[in-house]
Amino acid sequence: MQPAADPTRFILLHTSHGGNVGSAARAMKVMGFGDLVLVRPRFDDVLVREETIAYASGAADVLARARVVDSLAEALEGVTHACATAMTPRDFGPPAQAPRAALPALAQQPHRMAFVFGSERFGMANEDVWRCHSVLSIPTHPGYGSLNLAQAVQLIAYEWRQSLGAFEVVTATPPPCWAGADEVQGTLAHWRSALEAIGYLDPAAPKKLMPRLNQLANRLTLTREEVHILRGIARTMLKSAATPVVDEVVEATAAAPAPRD
Amino acid sequence: MQPAADPTRFILLHTSHGGNVGSAARAMKVMGFGDLVLVRPRFDDVLVREETIAYASGAADVLARARVVDSLAEALEGVTHACATAMTPRDFGPPAQAPRAALPALAQQPHRMAFVFGSERFGMANEDVWRCHSVLSIPTHPGYGSLNLAQAVQLIAYEWRQSLGAFEVVTATPPPCWAGADEVQGTLAHWRSALEAIGYLDPAAPKKLMPRLNQLANRLTLTREEVHILRGIARTMLKSAATPVVDEVVEATAAAPAPRD
Repeated sequence: MQPAADPTRFILLHTSHGGNVGSAARAMKVMGFGDLVLVRPRFDDVLVREETIAYASGAADVLARARVVDSLAEALEGVTHACATAMTPRDFGPPAQAPRAALPALAQQPHRMAFVFGSERFGMANEDVWRCHSVLSIPTHPGYGSLNLAQAVQLIAYEWRQSLGAFEVVTATPPPCWAGADEVQGTLAHWRSALEAIGYLDPAAPKKLMPRLNQLANRLTLTREEVHILRGIARTMLKSAATPVVDEVVEATAAAPAPRD
Repeated sequence: MQPAADPTRFILLHTSHGGNVGSAARAMKVMGFGDLVLVRPRFDDVLVREETIAYASGAADVLARARVVDSLAEALEGVTHACATAMTPRDFGPPAQAPRAALPALAQQPHRMAFVFGSERFGMANEDVWRCHSVLSIPTHPGYGSLNLAQAVQLIAYEWRQSLGAFEVVTATPPPCWAGADEVQGTLAHWRSALEAIGYLDPAAPKKLMPRLNQLANRLTLTREEVHILRGIARTMLKSAATPVVDEVVEATAAAPAPRD
């Protein structure tokens, strides 16, 4: 009934809005799931409605594979563990658990899982909750727990994917090349000369300026490239101040090349 | 600018669809956030559009408090740590991190946080990403990372709430009263008698039936109430088999009361 690679089914009960069906398909697909079953949706043709397809965006293949059935029992064919989602607590059935508390342990077991979602207006009926093996409740603000259906599907699909093993985050930034403390101290000495040259720092009464700049520089965790920029600025300040004694300082300390950009 | 109790801002850049603005407001509110700022939305009046208000559902108060500004710099007023959200990796700026990897540490710091979301069609511009302190990327399927804007807001709001300390999940089911192993063994003895009485178990050739039922009973982790039901069924099987020797067994083993329902 489902490919071995995708042993997770999402079941929507009595859904009213095609937009939610489409959004649910998209929410599933971004997390790598594709098995969608609708139990008695409000509109029999909901899978081919314009609104549904528009909200599914690039997940039309999930809609194309989706099935409409008459009962939760049919929808659960082959499933070994069904998780109800219920935002209002029930006084019977499995105790409600937060997804993050319940899902990691379930992901360790070889279950064919289903996540079951109630209708927009009424949520899940008690007799459908009782048919499930566990109940998930997404923790929301006590004063406003009105989670949209497609948002609930998104959060559960995300948490389940995290529990199964999250997808990688791709980063294209090269790893930073941090400057050593010696390079930072050299930069500060360069700046001290420059600030004296332009007349901001009085060598006779330096006060706490250099300790403060040193603390700032440490907090920055400078890269080597940033050290080059800061030395370039100091060098240019010294040149612009244009006193003979300053030029000597430039020669003595400006060992770093100018930044390439 | 914002109440101390809600030091988290959600910033949407150049948003096109009122439905997404309304859904974002709702997504924020269910996770307990309420500070929404829009930078140059496509429609100046997006906050009061019918579609926006419809999608916000009960989060109209978030829309009422929301502000429209001209630049990201204005939107970041008072913010000490801005997280960009970027689904496509950039070769410059903070390295992309998964929310679950980055947010717990940030939640330990006294930052006034902002989460920044790009437009539906183009995401965040590089020059806006560079203005941020960190970059979050929601881990999605490598072949289909097309996360809807409001869904991205929902996932980040959820993860940030989890990092700050999740809301409680309310459960109304009383804690189960598990049966002791002695009660389970008593029930199995009762069933053994009943199965012999009805002729399912041959005492002369019992094979592995009782060990199998014992394994099943152990896996069930029975409650005391369920023990009462199972004993009631065994008692009734014995009565219905109606042989003199069976009635003796009933008297000897049916110590448990009948189930109340």
